[in-house]
Amino acid sequence: MELLKKTLERIDELDVGVMKKTENRINNLVKPIGSLGKLESLAIQLSGIRGELFPKTDNKAIIVMASDHGVCQEGVASAPQSVTEFQTHNISQGKTGVCALASVAGADIVTVDIGVMVDLNNEKILNKKVMYGTKNMTIGPAMTYEEAVKGLEVGIEVSEAEIKKGRNIIATGEMGIGNTTPSTAILSVLGDYAPVEITGIGANLPGEKVENKIKVIEKAIKINSPDKNNALDVLSKVGGLDIAGMAGTMLACAANRIPCIVDGYISTAAALIACALESKTKNYLICSHFSKEKGAAAASNLLGIEPMLNMNMRLGEGSGAALVFNILDSAVAMNKQMITFQEAGIDVV
Amino acid sequence: MELLKKTLERIDELDVGVMKKTENRINNLVKPIGSLGKLESLAIQLSGIRGELFPKTDNKAIIVMASDHGVCQEGVASAPQSVTEFQTHNISQGKTGVCALASVAGADIVTVDIGVMVDLNNEKILNKKVMYGTKNMTIGPAMTYEEAVKGLEVGIEVSEAEIKKGRNIIATGEMGIGNTTPSTAILSVLGDYAPVEITGIGANLPGEKVENKIKVIEKAIKINSPDKNNALDVLSKVGGLDIAGMAGTMLACAANRIPCIVDGYISTAAALIACALESKTKNYLICSHFSKEKGAAAASNLLGIEPMLNMNMRLGEGSGAALVFNILDSAVAMNKQMITFQEAGIDVV
Repeated sequence: MELLKKTLERIDELDVGVMKKTENRINNLVKPIGSLGKLESLAIQLSGIRGELFPKTDNKAIIVMASDHGVCQEGVASAPQSVTEFQTHNISQGKTGVCALASVAGADIVTVDIGVMVDLNNEKILNKKVMYGTKNMTIGPAMTYEEAVKGLEVGIEVSEAEIKKGRNIIATGEMGIGNTTPSTAILSVLGDYAPVEITGIGANLPGEKVENKIKVIEKAIKINSPDKNNALDVLSKVGGLDIAGMAGTMLACAANRIPCIVDGYISTAAALIACALESKTKNYLICSHFSKEKGAAAASNLLGIEPMLNMNMRLGEGSGAALVFNILDSAVAMNKQMITFQEAGIDVV
Repeated sequence: MELLKKTLERIDELDVGVMKKTENRINNLVKPIGSLGKLESLAIQLSGIRGELFPKTDNKAIIVMASDHGVCQEGVASAPQSVTEFQTHNISQGKTGVCALASVAGADIVTVDIGVMVDLNNEKILNKKVMYGTKNMTIGPAMTYEEAVKGLEVGIEVSEAEIKKGRNIIATGEMGIGNTTPSTAILSVLGDYAPVEITGIGANLPGEKVENKIKVIEKAIKINSPDKNNALDVLSKVGGLDIAGMAGTMLACAANRIPCIVDGYISTAAALIACALESKTKNYLICSHFSKEKGAAAASNLLGIEPMLNMNMRLGEGSGAALVFNILDSAVAMNKQMITFQEAGIDVV
């Protein structure tokens, strides 16, 4: 609890002075004012986060949090739970979707076992297991408060270790069969949505089983009565350890003034938790893509950050976030490499 | 006319056999079927274009067509026409928006004077001038048929020279003060839109001058009566040389089985011309970003290809297209680097 508390206290406002300086420069580049849209606002945000006009984004990591979800006992996932173990090994060996995209982006992947239901015994995977999978949230809380805090603190610790190594941009990813169910439960509680409005197919759940998934989420919320004004209560009762770890990564990035890329649906649910714990965290987040998952638009709206990519993706792992590194590099290059009207030797165009 | 005719005749269907093979592989990769959305359809399209399972996208060029527009005499642009000359020099010297983004993408820029109103005398700019700017289309046709054909053929020639150098992916860009006006006229004619529905501010035209821009476009269409079933008639009467050159690039890419990235609004207008000349061209096009220009959604709908990026950009030059190279690299890497379930040693997950 001490690490979480200290981290939350360290999260500060963006550097408004540098942002103004960056904005002034961008408004003087040889182009119509505002014509580079989100590239401009990203460059300004990155400056405000890092406190410099030309921040670097060259030391990239994707931190992938892997965990299991007890609610899978209720038939909410199309794949068997063993796929979490299987895919976590594959991620650590560079064989999955996020690995391919990370290699193009020049990003390293850090694979973290924060709560997989079996021991992984793989030296390429950080063993930070809080517990062997969460409990079935339709019977009681998914975790205790202490376990949820530990999940957040694992995220903070792992991320701060990466930041100490020199990472200047971090993305969030996850692997956890069944994790659209706790994500939807979190969104339902924090955003006052009925589960029926926002529950989707996750990783190809057959249509006829979605009705059961909705009932499972309704039951989990009813039986646990999470307090929407207490993010820790929501996270522990109807959340997951992968979500806790990602929220921890976001908090650590914010506390250490490092930009953090939000992936898709699960990652956005984690962002909702992180921002509920400390609202200033939002300033440090960059949303990557519009997930195809049903509740994704509601989640993005509630978070209040519009994603950039429209790729109909819904894989998770950090795959959507991986596609955004290049856009951030582009935002910084735009600000740094374009010349100003003054540099071009003319006053006004 | 001979080169254009031969090029159109060479444009063929995609390689359906290889596309099927690619689709089968992608459906067997270690992920839920369909979960990588557009990355999957892009990988399949690229395979069909190149006729191979793992096409390369490492030799990148952005071909920027620069030209002036006689219709600027009617006060449709916020910047003076001399900015075309000024910015074309700047592009050739690596100083503008597209240059910064191309450097991040690892793409070369080919700057082409296809119709700037003055001589540029710059060895970094290909001198392929068809004429010193188009004529004022509110008085008569912007160009003759012969000039429009020459514009298309310059696009074909320049692009085929690049393809002969080994380019395996090409993007379109432009520089031409006033060119949202002919683009909107083309969209109006080909899509049966009233100019008032689709005319926007271009590069920051003050709101009170947009009404005049609408009237100018209406007048140009009325006085020239372009035949919507004859793309050459539309291009010559209410088009531009930058647009002709970009359409030529698209045709050359299609004829030589090279993927071609469409930039924003002007580029989409060129794509409409290219596809009207030969509908199979569409299979070779990849649309990059939703431009902020008012008519952009109508243009994309008419073309029938949904862009990927939602960046609120409206600079042109090929800046949006430049951001997509990395996504195409990612699509190919996904297909090539991810392992299949069979390779992972399991039958079904």
